[in-house]
Amino acid sequence: MDRHSAADEPITPLGFLERAATLFADRRAVVDGEREWTYREFDDRARRQAGLLRSLGVKRGDRVAVLALNGVMLLESHYGVPLAGAALVAMNTRLSVPELQYIVDHSRSKVLLLDEFHSHLAAKLVAPRVIAGPDYDDLLASAPPGGEMPDDEWSLLAVDYTSGTTGRPKGVMYHHRGAYLQSLAMAFHTRLDLDSVFLWTLPMFHCNGWCFTWAVTAAGGTHLCLPRIEPGVVWEMIEHYGVTHLNAAPTVLTMLSADPAADPAKVQGVIKVATGGAPPSPALLERLGGLGMEVTHLYGLTETFGPVAIRQLAPETARLPAAERARLTSRQGGANIAARRLRVVDDSGADVPADGETLGQVAIRSGTVMLGYLDDEEATRAAVPDGWFRTGDLGVMHPDGAVELRDRSKDIIISGGENIASIEVEQALDSHPAVLESAVVGAPDDLWGEVPVAFVTLREGADVGPEELVEHVRGRLARFKAPKRIVFGPLPKTATGKIQKFVLREQVRG
Amino acid sequence: MDRHSAADEPITPLGFLERAATLFADRRAVVDGEREWTYREFDDRARRQAGLLRSLGVKRGDRVAVLALNGVMLLESHYGVPLAGAALVAMNTRLSVPELQYIVDHSRSKVLLLDEFHSHLAAKLVAPRVIAGPDYDDLLASAPPGGEMPDDEWSLLAVDYTSGTTGRPKGVMYHHRGAYLQSLAMAFHTRLDLDSVFLWTLPMFHCNGWCFTWAVTAAGGTHLCLPRIEPGVVWEMIEHYGVTHLNAAPTVLTMLSADPAADPAKVQGVIKVATGGAPPSPALLERLGGLGMEVTHLYGLTETFGPVAIRQLAPETARLPAAERARLTSRQGGANIAARRLRVVDDSGADVPADGETLGQVAIRSGTVMLGYLDDEEATRAAVPDGWFRTGDLGVMHPDGAVELRDRSKDIIISGGENIASIEVEQALDSHPAVLESAVVGAPDDLWGEVPVAFVTLREGADVGPEELVEHVRGRLARFKAPKRIVFGPLPKTATGKIQKFVLREQVRG
Repeated sequence: MDRHSAADEPITPLGFLERAATLFADRRAVVDGEREWTYREFDDRARRQAGLLRSLGVKRGDRVAVLALNGVMLLESHYGVPLAGAALVAMNTRLSVPELQYIVDHSRSKVLLLDEFHSHLAAKLVAPRVIAGPDYDDLLASAPPGGEMPDDEWSLLAVDYTSGTTGRPKGVMYHHRGAYLQSLAMAFHTRLDLDSVFLWTLPMFHCNGWCFTWAVTAAGGTHLCLPRIEPGVVWEMIEHYGVTHLNAAPTVLTMLSADPAADPAKVQGVIKVATGGAPPSPALLERLGGLGMEVTHLYGLTETFGPVAIRQLAPETARLPAAERARLTSRQGGANIAARRLRVVDDSGADVPADGETLGQVAIRSGTVMLGYLDDEEATRAAVPDGWFRTGDLGVMHPDGAVELRDRSKDIIISGGENIASIEVEQALDSHPAVLESAVVGAPDDLWGEVPVAFVTLREGADVGPEELVEHVRGRLARFKAPKRIVFGPLPKTATGKIQKFVLREQVRG
Repeated sequence: MDRHSAADEPITPLGFLERAATLFADRRAVVDGEREWTYREFDDRARRQAGLLRSLGVKRGDRVAVLALNGVMLLESHYGVPLAGAALVAMNTRLSVPELQYIVDHSRSKVLLLDEFHSHLAAKLVAPRVIAGPDYDDLLASAPPGGEMPDDEWSLLAVDYTSGTTGRPKGVMYHHRGAYLQSLAMAFHTRLDLDSVFLWTLPMFHCNGWCFTWAVTAAGGTHLCLPRIEPGVVWEMIEHYGVTHLNAAPTVLTMLSADPAADPAKVQGVIKVATGGAPPSPALLERLGGLGMEVTHLYGLTETFGPVAIRQLAPETARLPAAERARLTSRQGGANIAARRLRVVDDSGADVPADGETLGQVAIRSGTVMLGYLDDEEATRAAVPDGWFRTGDLGVMHPDGAVELRDRSKDIIISGGENIASIEVEQALDSHPAVLESAVVGAPDDLWGEVPVAFVTLREGADVGPEELVEHVRGRLARFKAPKRIVFGPLPKTATGKIQKFVLREQVRG
């Protein structure tokens, strides 16, 4: 390209804040508890954070770790840290001290920021510089605005550590370009706008909040911070602020819909809800619909800046019978507008037939895929053997171009030579009115190799025996897929609400 | 970037068709008269066009010119030509034969495609290969699908000749990256979606239809082709197809709203209307609102892939008095979500104060600016002296970050040493209930240097004398700004509805 061109401008999500601070300067950008900031003020805070980090010796190419609940400090770090030229390491607040220390060390973070809630960890975590809670606010107030836009859109914006269930976490490298494209895709698909009020029910440390940390700013909407999920508080905020958007795992949606405070009269218009992971059950979708929530089902990974797929159903499908529509809804769908194309490939990297039956691995190539794993060439090469990122998720390609996950490969239970997708059994269990949620894993069995064992949480006040549940599943699936044993009780979960199946697997193997 | 990365995928609007053909294969993509195509069929046509062009010897880096009314041939050329590796030259259908020949020659187009309406020009226009009307359909049907995605997002996608009012037209070079970003911006701002029905009231040859040729496909909506503006037909299509979106110059909107067929009962929900050029008058906005049309005011140039600015008013402004709101609406606004930042600069390239008063030139730098002018280094350097593209439009920067055009520099009338922006006088005239539209130019005057002269078209059936109109303007503007003479009659216009002020200027000078 000709160097005279005015087109040679790197794309970066930092530009969204520059634009919002220019065009929406006096509009409300962030609410955190009792405090509020306009876009002019929020931009000023971000640039002061960059100035502060520079004054602490942070240089281009460094990393800055942040451990904070959803709040203004973590949100502004999505702008201030990269403005200072560094990459943000937003850490999972549920991790143990040794796990956190591993991430600070592995990322070689020069500075560690702790919010007030985590300031007691200042004595336990080691980094070249640790700034905690109240000190941060003072330092920020006196810091000179600083920082600058990146001159390379491929430069490192963030390192997101995957909460791997086994082995050491890997540092997924995010680039400015990918976060920019993913932000536009999210803003487009969820119809973010100037009058959007986005409630932060999703942790910002989780894939940088699926890039909504930048997408909401791109649209000029309001970030409504929420440090932790208390359903009563969520319903209060929905009513008080006129929430228009929220993102959450199905588990959180189940909690919100079951709460006594749930009331459609508190919703102004419709709340656009995006959810990831397992498809929400038809029963849950119906309950949420009755509460004024319109749910979009997304699928993605840390390596893809969050949601890479979206289930967009054609308007015509509204006329289909409910069961047929539920069947379509449960698919993960197709590439989002920026992700372009998902594939399902066999071991040789060739596409499996789009027949809705042949199992393969979901693969992605697009501007919204990570650069690789930090300091782990081997893992990067294994994940991207041929220019296509392998998700590790098994699924099928339907004739309508939609991908449907069958399971993580490790969640396939092989029983008597037959494959059982644990998700199928879970969906059958969840369709029983007494069941709140369930998880199914394979237990070793001398005769069959493996048999499915179900862990089930019942709804409050519900009562049902294991025999009835097994019969319920048998009424829906091949008999061999019915659980051989049912354990009642709460399910172990990660900070983001993912069920920790590895804990259950250890339990059935022990 | 690491070559192993799965992120190193060029961004191109051609990917939108690939995605739509995968995910929305059986949905209606294009309607042209009695004919309709699904996305699978449309994608097939585009790839056959690429195959056809390749078989005619078109190679990477070549140009292909198309002269066609809004229809499937011109639309598919936005995909087929670049899939063949060439750049599309979509020509203005109102040009004369010598003007068209100049463009074919200047662009060194290898192939010229003519639709049926223009097939008689096959005998008059010279190109290495000319394919007209019915032959095209036959050749397409028998061509093998071909072509491939670009491997460089900066490569040439299209050459759009500016309909310059003086001198030879210049070939504005569009790149894949810019068209991709602009398409996402347009899809976001106008809320295009799967169920959008986009009526092609804007010529596709005009900045490639402001990139809606690609944006509608990105959203998976339907392209409803319209070869020419006949208000009765437009209202019929609105009713029959449930049109949700259309783009048009204010002149066209005036025609649509004044037509006897205009009827809000024909509109399902709301039609999102995007308009460019002069801001629509408050009276027109009110009439359109009554017809179920919600108008967004855009501003842009050929050099910026069409609309680079959008006037987004905060929801709060709905509570302002109508006059105040109209004042805000008449500003061109701020950068679109992909364009990031507009500036208003003085002759030295420094920002003028954001005081809403100091006049400067509007300047832009973003991924949605052209590469330059084809084979015209000098003009490119003049337009982009320092990495910022100069629009040639004069305006002011308001404290709220909105740019307001005062006039093209040549449309400033200097009278007695005072500047008169002709647009101000036109708006004052247009606010008179009898006035349909007006244009004001400077006429030479011995005493004052220049004086404003107004050309006015009255509404059908309206009757008003020049004295009353002059009094009307004097009631709104400083006396020296009132026209010294008023000429009644229709205004000369370009194909895209722009008033040809140079014709009027010649008239008052003659």
